[in-house]
Amino acid sequence: MPQTYNYDQYNVSFPQDGVAVVEINRADAMNAFTPNMILNIGKIFNQLATDEDCRAIVLTGAGDKAFTAGLDLKQTSLAGSGGKDSARTMISELRPLLLSFQNAVTQAEKCLKPIISVMHGYSFGMAIDLTTATDIRICTSDVKLSVKEVDIGLAADVGSLSRLVKIVGSMSWVKDICCSARIFGADEALRQGLVSAVYKDKKEALAAALKLAGLIASKSPVAVQSTKEILNYSVDHPIEHGLRYTAAWNSGALQTADIPEAVKASLTKTTPRFAKL
Amino acid sequence: MPQTYNYDQYNVSFPQDGVAVVEINRADAMNAFTPNMILNIGKIFNQLATDEDCRAIVLTGAGDKAFTAGLDLKQTSLAGSGGKDSARTMISELRPLLLSFQNAVTQAEKCLKPIISVMHGYSFGMAIDLTTATDIRICTSDVKLSVKEVDIGLAADVGSLSRLVKIVGSMSWVKDICCSARIFGADEALRQGLVSAVYKDKKEALAAALKLAGLIASKSPVAVQSTKEILNYSVDHPIEHGLRYTAAWNSGALQTADIPEAVKASLTKTTPRFAKL
Amino acid sequence: MPQTYNYDQYNVSFPQDGVAVVEINRADAMNAFTPNMILNIGKIFNQLATDEDCRAIVLTGAGDKAFTAGLDLKQTSLAGSGGKDSARTMISELRPLLLSFQNAVTQAEKCLKPIISVMHGYSFGMAIDLTTATDIRICTSDVKLSVKEVDIGLAADVGSLSRLVKIVGSMSWVKDICCSARIFGADEALRQGLVSAVYKDKKEALAAALKLAGLIASKSPVAVQSTKEILNYSVDHPIEHGLRYTAAWNSGALQTADIPEAVKASLTKTTPRFAKL
Amino acid sequence: MPQTYNYDQYNVSFPQDGVAVVEINRADAMNAFTPNMILNIGKIFNQLATDEDCRAIVLTGAGDKAFTAGLDLKQTSLAGSGGKDSARTMISELRPLLLSFQNAVTQAEKCLKPIISVMHGYSFGMAIDLTTATDIRICTSDVKLSVKEVDIGLAADVGSLSRLVKIVGSMSWVKDICCSARIFGADEALRQGLVSAVYKDKKEALAAALKLAGLIASKSPVAVQSTKEILNYSVDHPIEHGLRYTAAWNSGALQTADIPEAVKASLTKTTPRFAKL
Amino acid sequence: MPQTYNYDQYNVSFPQDGVAVVEINRADAMNAFTPNMILNIGKIFNQLATDEDCRAIVLTGAGDKAFTAGLDLKQTSLAGSGGKDSARTMISELRPLLLSFQNAVTQAEKCLKPIISVMHGYSFGMAIDLTTATDIRICTSDVKLSVKEVDIGLAADVGSLSRLVKIVGSMSWVKDICCSARIFGADEALRQGLVSAVYKDKKEALAAALKLAGLIASKSPVAVQSTKEILNYSVDHPIEHGLRYTAAWNSGALQTADIPEAVKASLTKTTPRFAKL
Amino acid sequence: MPQTYNYDQYNVSFPQDGVAVVEINRADAMNAFTPNMILNIGKIFNQLATDEDCRAIVLTGAGDKAFTAGLDLKQTSLAGSGGKDSARTMISELRPLLLSFQNAVTQAEKCLKPIISVMHGYSFGMAIDLTTATDIRICTSDVKLSVKEVDIGLAADVGSLSRLVKIVGSMSWVKDICCSARIFGADEALRQGLVSAVYKDKKEALAAALKLAGLIASKSPVAVQSTKEILNYSVDHPIEHGLRYTAAWNSGALQTADIPEAVKASLTKTTPRFAKL
Repeated sequence: MPQTYNYDQYNVSFPQDGVAVVEINRADAMNAFTPNMILNIGKIFNQLATDEDCRAIVLTGAGDKAFTAGLDLKQTSLAGSGGKDSARTMISELRPLLLSFQNAVTQAEKCLKPIISVMHGYSFGMAIDLTTATDIRICTSDVKLSVKEVDIGLAADVGSLSRLVKIVGSMSWVKDICCSARIFGADEALRQGLVSAVYKDKKEALAAALKLAGLIASKSPVAVQSTKEILNYSVDHPIEHGLRYTAAWNSGALQTADIPEAVKASLTKTTPRFAKL
Repeated sequence: MPQTYNYDQYNVSFPQDGVAVVEINRADAMNAFTPNMILNIGKIFNQLATDEDCRAIVLTGAGDKAFTAGLDLKQTSLAGSGGKDSARTMISELRPLLLSFQNAVTQAEKCLKPIISVMHGYSFGMAIDLTTATDIRICTSDVKLSVKEVDIGLAADVGSLSRLVKIVGSMSWVKDICCSARIFGADEALRQGLVSAVYKDKKEALAAALKLAGLIASKSPVAVQSTKEILNYSVDHPIEHGLRYTAAWNSGALQTADIPEAVKASLTKTTPRFAKL
Repeated sequence: MPQTYNYDQYNVSFPQDGVAVVEINRADAMNAFTPNMILNIGKIFNQLATDEDCRAIVLTGAGDKAFTAGLDLKQTSLAGSGGKDSARTMISELRPLLLSFQNAVTQAEKCLKPIISVMHGYSFGMAIDLTTATDIRICTSDVKLSVKEVDIGLAADVGSLSRLVKIVGSMSWVKDICCSARIFGADEALRQGLVSAVYKDKKEALAAALKLAGLIASKSPVAVQSTKEILNYSVDHPIEHGLRYTAAWNSGALQTADIPEAVKASLTKTTPRFAKL
Repeated sequence: MPQTYNYDQYNVSFPQDGVAVVEINRADAMNAFTPNMILNIGKIFNQLATDEDCRAIVLTGAGDKAFTAGLDLKQTSLAGSGGKDSARTMISELRPLLLSFQNAVTQAEKCLKPIISVMHGYSFGMAIDLTTATDIRICTSDVKLSVKEVDIGLAADVGSLSRLVKIVGSMSWVKDICCSARIFGADEALRQGLVSAVYKDKKEALAAALKLAGLIASKSPVAVQSTKEILNYSVDHPIEHGLRYTAAWNSGALQTADIPEAVKASLTKTTPRFAKL
Repeated sequence: MPQTYNYDQYNVSFPQDGVAVVEINRADAMNAFTPNMILNIGKIFNQLATDEDCRAIVLTGAGDKAFTAGLDLKQTSLAGSGGKDSARTMISELRPLLLSFQNAVTQAEKCLKPIISVMHGYSFGMAIDLTTATDIRICTSDVKLSVKEVDIGLAADVGSLSRLVKIVGSMSWVKDICCSARIFGADEALRQGLVSAVYKDKKEALAAALKLAGLIASKSPVAVQSTKEILNYSVDHPIEHGLRYTAAWNSGALQTADIPEAVKASLTKTTPRFAKL
Repeated sequence: MPQTYNYDQYNVSFPQDGVAVVEINRADAMNAFTPNMILNIGKIFNQLATDEDCRAIVLTGAGDKAFTAGLDLKQTSLAGSGGKDSARTMISELRPLLLSFQNAVTQAEKCLKPIISVMHGYSFGMAIDLTTATDIRICTSDVKLSVKEVDIGLAADVGSLSRLVKIVGSMSWVKDICCSARIFGADEALRQGLVSAVYKDKKEALAAALKLAGLIASKSPVAVQSTKEILNYSVDHPIEHGLRYTAAWNSGALQTADIPEAVKASLTKTTPRFAKL
């Protein structure tokens, strides 16, 4: 029986076999994130992680205007509740808040199903925090991207800074956009490798994301999920430790029925069928 | 009262509010670096780090011909003073010399104010060592870049090799330029992400650098300096440790008056005013 | 007296001074790798590492069709020999097999002479595992590249995943190609930095590789080999540790006769002559 | 209003100001851990982490016989549910189970209030997994300790192995006890540094733990919690990174009212009063 | 059919089921190591690693006088062959030599069967290099231990320094013995945790080693080998990465027939029988 | 010509060949550290690092009462100068202050000559910060040790926490003393490995320190300094990286005249003479 997903201001649907679409659904507020929405996106990825019907995920934002305009400043207190010395505010309020936000976003990494983010329109602040924790980023030609946090007086702290330095090549560019908070577009994002494809508009981008998700969902889920986990481990470790982790992982994972199934399908030019995972 | 900067063969000026320009001033020798000049650039960044009037820095070279032609080989002994066995030369002379050069260059990272390097003309050897330790690199269309050390019989040891692998994406390209010492130009540097912008000539490049520095200087200095530090920490650590450092840092830094000031300015469409830092 | 190289299905030649060419020589099977061929390529790099006549290496595949089509599945058992519980298969068969394959490929890194890979035609699976462990990658305009493993039901485990995240900049692209196993071409490989140059066909690509190898071979071998080692160390360590390793290494390496030789040649506009290494 | 703690098979009490006592309460089964009990201990530490009335924690087991005899094998499936290939069992069942157990135990580290474990009687398997994640370990003279997992056919995987190598000095001893699963006593545990004190019986050990917890609870909570976090960070990082983290943390934490309060109390020989945290 | 072991100056025997004894057999030279003997000990551990009849290993030295007096200086050239500049000697001779020695010793770690070293009499230099790479160290009451290298003008470079800091707790003591090269005895070694047991003489120590090896050999080899590997991985990584590696490893290893066998044996008070590994 | 050492509140003398004694000389204030004294101790170690007449160092405190009572709270502002928001105080005042103190203490590690600390009487706070950065710690039987910082409302931030976890074995004990700030004595310090020897009183302890320093000073300085550097590098890196660093270092350092000198002296039973370093 399929799982149900009830989370405020999100739609989760399965438009095609094995592919989940997570839509941020607060278009009237440019999909701005309330604290609760941040925690919920973590719960959604967490649930999808163990949903056998899900093999790949597309993340999108409702409406035409924005993937997300970022954090909803009116509903988020970054200052603490007051009445304490600043060390207490630091330790008992702000740090736990930041850790909980970071932890929610990190669920995108922990979920072994690949996540494709489709950014359109305003994609500020949390848009970068969130999508840099996903696997593949594509966008529309009219996207307006920005690591916006400096403009409201803070360094980005829900992941953008710690992840951008790992997922794009040019540190000169990363420091430029992070220190200036300037808005940049699809061409620049593509050239710098932040996104790996650009499409005319949201409709085409979503179609492309679904197609890619469908392709991934048609592969052996053992192979795909192992690949995501090993890539994520490797980016954070010396090469030799990445290799050692790979050997530990794959000496178990190679014992799957998917390999003979895939090889047989390849020889007989048929479509392989892989059991759920 | 503004600080004064008196360092041989450097000019330090403040052409606009919050922006320091550091000029390597040895044009008659193509701005080649003597050992003393290397130590001095470290002292300059060190002083700027605590100069409240400085919020962003532009690094340039005097004259039309060169940002810097590299190390001044006539004034630098890479061989030790002689009369010792090679282990003694290694431990008591060459290693301390290298560490002192590396340490000077690393001050560019330790200074939390963003540094924009403007490379023009000959930009060899030390040019790469030094600018890879700065934050943002731009250049002129006629720049001649080279990791030149192999041509004089040594591996680059003042930072180029250890930093290039972190600040540009393509290891194939890094190894090509570092093993061949070949000269490459602005287009290639831009395509590979070594620089993030190219301008027609030095005048335009400097103007662009000043404009970008001015933009950064207009932002909250708490936000900007926190951003630089967290990016530098993150590039050297696994993502989860970058996040943990970010949480420790920002749970203190969020308690700044700059956030309400920035938010208020944003809502009222006014220009925020941030206290010195 | 020159060393001899006798390895099944490889040709090793020295077409020009200081340059070795290693040719995968199993064109009738699209240069597909048997387990023995994987172990042998490690031995070849290992032997070249200490061959004084070798200063740079070009790696190519025989025939017009393929650099290599990947692992020869008919001759490789990824399933274990059977008759054991899955933990025993994991620990006593698959893990040692994977470690031995990984170790062979890693010899490309341990050999301090730069290796230039020339990919043409089909370059699948092992092609990526192997060339990502070499230093410089170039290809022909008709190359067909793929991290193909997912298509046969497994995550790449001979190095592609652990190395791709370090040698190209865009994680979005890496995850796209690794999770989808899709075939991509020369333009995309160049744009993403997987290769640093593209040539019309195999003949031109080989010529270019030989020229670059010849250029590198003409430099101080102390300088070149030190550069490779320091780059490889630095990519796996924080910048400050890369610098500390560099200082340890170079305080010994700077005591070479190559530096005065190189400097003298530079001043007198003559060609330097460097002793073997 | 004090928080309430309702968790199956645990008692949480506050016998003295600022000190929580967590008692594993399943004496009729030698306090053996069911999967649910593992998850709950994580939730308890998690709740205590933000409970202002808690400044230090004592962890103990009910009854005379055992701190805990380890995992309750009858209620824990380590084999997976069957009906899948072994790779699927690995990825979709066993790994998530292990991660959830590890995560629960790790909450002892994430909670910034120091935890003192009091081990008595049988203290096998989970006893080591759990207490090695706490801060201070003491025991009774009759304690029977064992890293017992090898005796049931597996390597300890809820933390004992990864933590023992960090919290005691002698690797020879760690490998001895972990590979042999032999039972050892209080003297050996004390000599090797696994525990830092031994008491005659449970009553005396609990009294000593409460006294130490009370002492810690009387100190500045800003100081104590900062100390725990910095020690935990430092054990996992190079010294220089531990120092850098310390500087980031303390440059915020030093701005506490506790320092003047502590200094004043010291000068006036009075008892300082620190606000809650 | 049992494997055979023919290595100059070593005896390898199997005095009891599952236990291999490796004896350094050059008593007339105090078991001093020639370069060939260093390489051979690596090959022996390598062969034992895949020998199904071996589940635990005891390492000892022939004769009454010495486990080993260290490197045989008469047969080892630490100076290079001469006729080269010092950088060439460094890169082409000494570094490869050191790497080959280190690699041989490291095979003790890579072999997943626990190795118990029994040191008696003179145990200098290589004795520490070698045994610190093994798992459990015991010694006789008359042992004479020394990190002797400083006395012949060099820092220990075959592993003692890099491993001592990980396998004993007191850095003050490590630096004392390493910088002074002083000889110390069994009591000190035991108190500092370098050895985990001391016996009256070689006969008793060997008997104890065989007994412990026999005990380990009676356990599930899946459990024992997994334990060694996870401990070795964990000592070199942050706790959270040790845990992640453990989860990857054990989610495969838990699918062994040894767990039900061990549990059944425990319930029925019978002796479990574990298949070879 | 011998160097001179003029630093306020320190005496530096050379009572025997190759041995420097650094005495903290503020007995009337229990050798409490002012900020200037912290910076100066860094400068002293820095100068000794390149003083050829110094091969080993003894660190002691003047007077009978104390090695040092810790930071002089009356002369140190831990609160910032006021008049700023807390983020500005953090970034522009407290963090630079902490970094400068940490950097001074770290000079004890960077100086390659072994430093022996002799603690007597009150040895609180800075005593631990400072001596944990030195190499060998010994003490008198009446020493009163304490990580005292928690008692004045802060976590130790000049190195004690980041170093204690690396230099002693028992984490349980480290957390006990750091969270409770309790005073402990010589026996406990010895048992836990914080010190490696205890002597009756200051006179005997100093004599022993001088004797050990003299022994170290009589060894090859190439060997001794290489040993210290490799140990310090290794404690902060995985074993394999420690080995790789060792190979880089020693392939240069082995080319010293000290090895033949030491070997010859050993064979001829004479005293070797090593050139200065």
